[in-house]
Amino acid sequence: MSELRWNAHLGEWTMTSSGRMERTYHPPADFCPLCPTAPGAFETEIPEPDFDLVVFENRFPSLFDPPLEPVVAGTELSPVKPSHGRCEVVVYTPEHEGSLGALSLERLFRLALVWQDRYRELGALDFIDYVLIFENRGREVGVTLDHPHGQIYAFPFVPPIPARELEVAAAYRARTGSCLTCALLAEELAAGNRVVLENEHFVVYIPFAARYPYETMVVPRTCRPSLAEMGEDELWSLAAALKATTLAYDALFDLPLPYMMIFHQAPTDGRSWPNAHFHVEFHPLQRSADKLKYRASVESGAGNFINDSLPEEKAEEMRAAVCRAAG
Amino acid sequence: MSELRWNAHLGEWTMTSSGRMERTYHPPADFCPLCPTAPGAFETEIPEPDFDLVVFENRFPSLFDPPLEPVVAGTELSPVKPSHGRCEVVVYTPEHEGSLGALSLERLFRLALVWQDRYRELGALDFIDYVLIFENRGREVGVTLDHPHGQIYAFPFVPPIPARELEVAAAYRARTGSCLTCALLAEELAAGNRVVLENEHFVVYIPFAARYPYETMVVPRTCRPSLAEMGEDELWSLAAALKATTLAYDALFDLPLPYMMIFHQAPTDGRSWPNAHFHVEFHPLQRSADKLKYRASVESGAGNFINDSLPEEKAEEMRAAVCRAAG
Repeated sequence: MSELRWNAHLGEWTMTSSGRMERTYHPPADFCPLCPTAPGAFETEIPEPDFDLVVFENRFPSLFDPPLEPVVAGTELSPVKPSHGRCEVVVYTPEHEGSLGALSLERLFRLALVWQDRYRELGALDFIDYVLIFENRGREVGVTLDHPHGQIYAFPFVPPIPARELEVAAAYRARTGSCLTCALLAEELAAGNRVVLENEHFVVYIPFAARYPYETMVVPRTCRPSLAEMGEDELWSLAAALKATTLAYDALFDLPLPYMMIFHQAPTDGRSWPNAHFHVEFHPLQRSADKLKYRASVESGAGNFINDSLPEEKAEEMRAAVCRAAG
Repeated sequence: MSELRWNAHLGEWTMTSSGRMERTYHPPADFCPLCPTAPGAFETEIPEPDFDLVVFENRFPSLFDPPLEPVVAGTELSPVKPSHGRCEVVVYTPEHEGSLGALSLERLFRLALVWQDRYRELGALDFIDYVLIFENRGREVGVTLDHPHGQIYAFPFVPPIPARELEVAAAYRARTGSCLTCALLAEELAAGNRVVLENEHFVVYIPFAARYPYETMVVPRTCRPSLAEMGEDELWSLAAALKATTLAYDALFDLPLPYMMIFHQAPTDGRSWPNAHFHVEFHPLQRSADKLKYRASVESGAGNFINDSLPEEKAEEMRAAVCRAAG
């Protein structure tokens, strides 16, 4: 069962998808479905004995193609529609142990090419309005498979958070004629004290109003709506920025830091999105070595975040961690 | 240090508040700061040897009155302002063990009077635009004190989630002339299969597009903007509805169910809010006896929830739990 139900109270879709309750839950390492299939052993999701990078459709998706028929009848006020979309799994490496940051830069560059390809191909489908590339990392985030991997959700609508960002950016453009993300990046570069690292094409910083103590934004210096417009040199820079950032996260407390990594880019609904400026957001859960930031009633019920730290101090910690991670 | 920083990217305030990092973290039961102070023992937050219900200012607030001076200078694009507001703690009972549902109905009614009083008194302050009454329950939600208690945040702005609800309700009113919450309540009562319980003045149901498997809405039948407009009979009904709902939550899996309980009501910014219809939302984290619903990248980065269950089936479970809890 899978369908989209309209939350009339908030004006957003909920993906109701009961099949997912059965999804694989912390299997032992020798039954990892994301490892290559060893000769004579149990067949994983990847029937080959080896691979470089693999993308396949999630066996426990929230969005379906072809879509399933909804099980309830909606109303005018509370409509329901088929959950027509795609959910893909991106396996970063055949090695069971590892992480995004531990991949070689060459492999991370090839992964960036895969992301670019998936954005283009899924975005070109006429029923796909938004391609969300992301990685959930760590059991604290809810991850049920430890093998290094990310995911892609291709939605039949523009989700509310990217929609909100684009709306705010459009209002800023109307007022000033400029790109909001470019303006914020210029401010961060001018202030400097929240910048974590820079390379040729990308800047990583902790935003002025960070919601999580170690939240970072990974932003291209040039205003690119999406991965689709990036050349290979930019993808190399992106790969290097992601590698340095995630290695720094693990160096912070000398533990694999639980995080969410989220790509925001232009919707693929066929409209023009002059205010989209590609960026990657990291939402790490840690607020110290042994404490997590919880999103409790204030965050979930009011929508405002409480950050128990100064972004300027956390950026200093992150810069030190970047250096330690680089040896 | 405490200040409000403007997240220009999303158009919302972050409460940056570094003093909270030092807050009391899972003290042993005999050092509970929310217990009454026993003669000769360490002094808790409540210097009396006994009490009925107590409200006091949070020692580790996110909002201050008088406000602190911001530590950073903002910019036109990323302004900062003093975090002028109030954070209060509401202790439900002098007993260290217990829960909202385990309170006697009489005590819960008096608690409803306390909430009404705090809404009125905090809302009347000229710098308070929104009074958020809530309870975080359970360590999985991030609670650091086990003693039964709730909290109140009195904000100097209308937070984005209530603002969004009111905006959606205003658009509905403009289109139809009616209250959205009334219309949704009428639909739920007509459908019946997601209704969990009803009493004279309140209805509890799992919303059609529930974000959490066991999410409930507690809604007054009469369109009341806030607690301030409710008579004593309505507060008795509210108390009874909250008691039955929270006892049912604990009966579901025979464990103290972690949840967030959030009151949404009319802002107190002096404007007229004809579309506010008081309601309480419960966001429980459990998706089964031993599994939690995580708000990972799709929820945090896109804003849409994945609900791995059918609200109609969960409402049936809840109705059975209501009966079990009532003995």
